[in-house]
Amino acid sequence: MTYVTEENLTDLAVERWGNIPDPRLRQIMMSAVKHLHGFVREVEPTQQEWFAAIDWLTRIGHMSTGKRQEFILASDVLGISMLVDSINNRAPGKATPSTVEGPFHIVDSPEISNGGNMAEGAPGIPCFVTGKITDLDGKPIAGAMLDMWQTDGEGLYEAQIEGAEGYMRGIYHSNPDGTYSVRTVAPIGYTIPMDGPIGELMGKTKISHMRPAHIHFHIAAPGYKSVTTHLFQKGSDFIDTDVVFGVKEALITDFVKKPAGKAPNGDMVDTPFYEVKYDFVLAKAAAAQKAA
Amino acid sequence: MTYVTEENLTDLAVERWGNIPDPRLRQIMMSAVKHLHGFVREVEPTQQEWFAAIDWLTRIGHMSTGKRQEFILASDVLGISMLVDSINNRAPGKATPSTVEGPFHIVDSPEISNGGNMAEGAPGIPCFVTGKITDLDGKPIAGAMLDMWQTDGEGLYEAQIEGAEGYMRGIYHSNPDGTYSVRTVAPIGYTIPMDGPIGELMGKTKISHMRPAHIHFHIAAPGYKSVTTHLFQKGSDFIDTDVVFGVKEALITDFVKKPAGKAPNGDMVDTPFYEVKYDFVLAKAAAAQKAA
Repeated sequence: MTYVTEENLTDLAVERWGNIPDPRLRQIMMSAVKHLHGFVREVEPTQQEWFAAIDWLTRIGHMSTGKRQEFILASDVLGISMLVDSINNRAPGKATPSTVEGPFHIVDSPEISNGGNMAEGAPGIPCFVTGKITDLDGKPIAGAMLDMWQTDGEGLYEAQIEGAEGYMRGIYHSNPDGTYSVRTVAPIGYTIPMDGPIGELMGKTKISHMRPAHIHFHIAAPGYKSVTTHLFQKGSDFIDTDVVFGVKEALITDFVKKPAGKAPNGDMVDTPFYEVKYDFVLAKAAAAQKAA
Repeated sequence: MTYVTEENLTDLAVERWGNIPDPRLRQIMMSAVKHLHGFVREVEPTQQEWFAAIDWLTRIGHMSTGKRQEFILASDVLGISMLVDSINNRAPGKATPSTVEGPFHIVDSPEISNGGNMAEGAPGIPCFVTGKITDLDGKPIAGAMLDMWQTDGEGLYEAQIEGAEGYMRGIYHSNPDGTYSVRTVAPIGYTIPMDGPIGELMGKTKISHMRPAHIHFHIAAPGYKSVTTHLFQKGSDFIDTDVVFGVKEALITDFVKKPAGKAPNGDMVDTPFYEVKYDFVLAKAAAAQKAA
């Protein structure tokens, strides 16, 4: 028997965690042990630092409830969520890239017909988003679902407003020619929650805790690989420092300011408004893959 | 500005987490990000696996209270606690090596004079532990404090028995010639708590969830580096598979079975008993170091 020394401990631990019948769990645990030990050997934490880490993790757990997930926030700010997203959504060629879903998606949003307003009664600058859903060859995809959600013009999602229902979200479908048309208000940038253990850590850094203005989309069509992504407002604050690492270049788009007048959906608007044009490209679902 | 791709994300994240004024926190966070990303890139978790990990961590947090620390248990079974312990307690030459403190230490144990019984009224086989506390040159250390705790003969610590107080623990001091003498009962092996998320994980492995029989010691003397350690019973169950990786070879010692009769402390014992002899060796505290 080999007993424990500082030198052999990692090898012993990796070997022991190989005693798992399920090959995937075995792979995950052996890798986790190896990398955790690598981290510990590199930084050589004091017992106090180790206990501070235990305490920090515990407080993250206590802060995480059905309504708030502080571990996901940790994963977000460390770039882990975005890495997992990227690994799981490698987009071929010109397909629209994914970005993180974030915590604010609500299922079963109201169905809205093209041109309809998903920001009824919400504060903010009117914003009209139009474009086309196509396949990789530019062929229009009819009846694609666009599940959309975003902040209002004051930076709040429905989930952050007591009693709100069907607010700043909606489900559209593309027309037979692949086009879609959405009326909303322009989103604005916002902070991640800073009142928990992640905020406490961020407060010790010079890292921005802000997200740039963006609109969320989940786009799906039968036979195609669905995509969960954002459109980001070009030139918006924090676009270069998104705290969750969500900004991919292909997702930055112009929000063109227009004078009061007739909007792309035919509405007459008596204030200046934004016009956003963006075409989404979906890849075919792999044969063996479900169109999730 | 460099926007995010799967390829550049780790470099961007490590660079961003370099924006921390405190050099130690900066080092820790940059290393943590690097190793976490390394783990994710190696195993390529699915979104479901990632969420299962988030959920598992959250449940570990919820299970951790003032009375129970499931994150420390996680650290223990992955070999992290023992690695941190080893890094922080590199023992020179023949000094008694450390091992993990574990969750069952209680401060301010009763003072017991040499030969006294720390297992009064407890079930188990009587056990007499004697030996000497010396420095690296074999010179006796008088008045060294031995803070001891262990299970009773049924595998329970005081903290696991409702209403118990001053049970299976005590503080002894070495005599002027460095010797000490303790009456107790032999500890037995026991399981880690298996009713939480760590138990759930262990249940998917073929890894033993048991600790071998051991007695805990915290030994301190002015001018010397204190040591927190165990003595393990040679040949006891689970000695080769301690779930928390605590067993160092120098800490395994004979529990010699003796017939009823006169014990090392002079007691007359009417049942067979164990005799354990062990000399502890303390290194001098470094000049700049507090004798903790």
